Amino acid sequence: MDAEIIAVGSELLTPFHQDTNSLYLTGKLNSLGIEVRYKTIVGDHRGRLAEVVRLAAGRSELVILIGGLGPTEDDLNREVVAEVLDRPLREVDEIRLKIEERWARLGRPMPENNLRQTMVPEGAEWLENSRGTAPGLWIEHDGCIMVLLPGPPHELEAMFEASCLPRLAGRSGGRRIRSRVYKVVGLPESEVDRRIAPHYRPYTNPETTILSTMGTIEVHLRAHGGSEADAESLLAELGDKIELALGDHIFSTRGESMEEVVGMYLVMKQKTAAVAESCTGGLVAERLTRVPGSSIFFLGGVVCYSNELKTRLVGVPAELIAEHGAVSKAVAQALAEGIRRRTGSSLGLGITGIAGPGGGTPEKPVGLVFIALSDERSTEVRQFRFPGDRERVRTWASVAALEMIRRRVRS
Amino acid sequence: MDAEIIAVGSELLTPFHQDTNSLYLTGKLNSLGIEVRYKTIVGDHRGRLAEVVRLAAGRSELVILIGGLGPTEDDLNREVVAEVLDRPLREVDEIRLKIEERWARLGRPMPENNLRQTMVPEGAEWLENSRGTAPGLWIEHDGCIMVLLPGPPHELEAMFEASCLPRLAGRSGGRRIRSRVYKVVGLPESEVDRRIAPHYRPYTNPETTILSTMGTIEVHLRAHGGSEADAESLLAELGDKIELALGDHIFSTRGESMEEVVGMYLVMKQKTAAVAESCTGGLVAERLTRVPGSSIFFLGGVVCYSNELKTRLVGVPAELIAEHGAVSKAVAQALAEGIRRRTGSSLGLGITGIAGPGGGTPEKPVGLVFIALSDERSTEVRQFRFPGDRERVRTWASVAALEMIRRRVRS
Repeated sequence: MDAEIIAVGSELLTPFHQDTNSLYLTGKLNSLGIEVRYKTIVGDHRGRLAEVVRLAAGRSELVILIGGLGPTEDDLNREVVAEVLDRPLREVDEIRLKIEERWARLGRPMPENNLRQTMVPEGAEWLENSRGTAPGLWIEHDGCIMVLLPGPPHELEAMFEASCLPRLAGRSGGRRIRSRVYKVVGLPESEVDRRIAPHYRPYTNPETTILSTMGTIEVHLRAHGGSEADAESLLAELGDKIELALGDHIFSTRGESMEEVVGMYLVMKQKTAAVAESCTGGLVAERLTRVPGSSIFFLGGVVCYSNELKTRLVGVPAELIAEHGAVSKAVAQALAEGIRRRTGSSLGLGITGIAGPGGGTPEKPVGLVFIALSDERSTEVRQFRFPGDRERVRTWASVAALEMIRRRVRS
Repeated sequence: MDAEIIAVGSELLTPFHQDTNSLYLTGKLNSLGIEVRYKTIVGDHRGRLAEVVRLAAGRSELVILIGGLGPTEDDLNREVVAEVLDRPLREVDEIRLKIEERWARLGRPMPENNLRQTMVPEGAEWLENSRGTAPGLWIEHDGCIMVLLPGPPHELEAMFEASCLPRLAGRSGGRRIRSRVYKVVGLPESEVDRRIAPHYRPYTNPETTILSTMGTIEVHLRAHGGSEADAESLLAELGDKIELALGDHIFSTRGESMEEVVGMYLVMKQKTAAVAESCTGGLVAERLTRVPGSSIFFLGGVVCYSNELKTRLVGVPAELIAEHGAVSKAVAQALAEGIRRRTGSSLGLGITGIAGPGGGTPEKPVGLVFIALSDERSTEVRQFRFPGDRERVRTWASVAALEMIRRRVRS
């Protein structure tokens, strides 16, 4: 089965916004062996949208439309699809009740324009939206399955998992695409490629892609097979070689984020962490607390931007700061040890550095960051020099800090 | 003049890669008054590419193809366009010389497959590539301008600036596009629409788009005019009405983020802030410290995930927590007042809530968040109930917290 994706929204034709839902959908469709053959982006314009829908319905077995299901006048997907497929819209009471209930739970009356969302083309199934008011639509028409999904990613993803994946799984035949993602830390992209190119180069199946994201590298393998087992065994053959070549720089093979991996290790080892952050401004705490249940392994932390707070909240001696400067090995160490002492955590992390754009000097340039990790036995301090702008320096520093915790608790 | 963009490459139809060149091109085209009406992404496949090119040539005055000009066998754009427009390819000696020179400078002989890049469809102009070997192509055919650009962004951008912008500037007439973005907080999307629809509905120029991002709403206006001044005055006419309808829910008109606006007000009023965060885990501190120079207005904060740390680091009385529970109005207030006292900031912010997925009860469900803001005169505590998953609850809470600061310091 071949698919095409149509992302609808005038904002997607400006320089400011980009469709990202199609990446998620492509991943899910691939897992069922369905390849995406076209992606089209079109604005909230009746005529052009109708033209794109008509073309897609004629050439693809599966057409997924994203967006345009909201309550406002420029949300046209429902109407345009009904028109192109010549299926009149009818109000569905059950949807109306659900939307009214949703507003009632928020303690507000349903706005009149939400009524547009209760309309369903004749012969279509509607798909429940567990995270918003706009129901999706599933329409089978002349050998084409047309699916309308809401634009907000969390709504789209929940609806696709709950309502579309099971329906599509039965239809997609035996061919499967499986993929594997290795997340790598502590090596630059060119070094990752140098190590693994001799292994992946002989293969066209799996395909290999190397991707640099903020602070980590991802190696993606995609294999096609006559069955899941076939595809998996192709993945395993190349994957084993890649795992050997990259060793413990691989921190994740199942999609887990850096903070999830660190959290998992901390829980396994029954350790807790606390952080004292200067230049990262709370980013490390924020990342650790993204993990559901993080209260088990993360006690808390201090964001001490000013020198005074470093002393007052974490107990860094004022003389130490005066002597070495706030951005120094000694202060990083005092932050790590101080936060560990004040919170009673097993591990204390201290970060101090210059994120920029201002504040750099020839001796202490923008990008200079000291990170210290302290436990009951010792404190390790590392000095880094990160490239890039404020956001990049902060992100790299947070990755380096999490990596120090990972290496400490894993061993 | 209307344009469409076709990005070519099988990797752009995987879950891992996205066309980003079209954002750059859209910005440049808009500056000349040229609107992008469609974007299509298609793989390196002769038949499908030909279909897409044929369709585009028939409906758009300007068609820009990205990619597919490399020397390898899966680079098909040159051949497919020549075929669709029925213009035979001819070798151009001048291109061959340039490519040979380029390789000579690298000290290597030209590989055989680079010869593909010397081929130009009859009647086409070729565009010099100052940063790579693949020349671009400019073809005028039956009222359609078709431009072929190389995929690597630095090659594409240099070629577009040098060869396409000047040619297009002469063609696009005086028409210009200007845009304005209002960022709105504290109103749901449907309410924003209810307030402004009567104003924007009569206008097709400017076009209005309403966009819901995490916790805030954006209203985009784009106006076409015979000159920049014309377009600006059209923007101002509708914009003034929208500003009136949304009033002080608009926090930004020049693209600034919520945290930048809050920072600006704090600096203007010479106030400082500090935060004590529980469920947001450092997100508010992290957002405030994204702003360059935030050390002027942000002293720091505490992430107190455990009850013990609320007491130890912020001085929330243990009895208060025992009596009211950690997620309560009283504890939010004590956090705000405590962090203000401990840091000496002008404003203290306290946040406590249940981000989920676990930890909810019938009385205190997931999404319940208390936010308190304290200054030298008083402490305000607000209770919220945010929908959605952990990430959304945290994001909404951070927006609500920043909004409380904005309203306090603005007045």
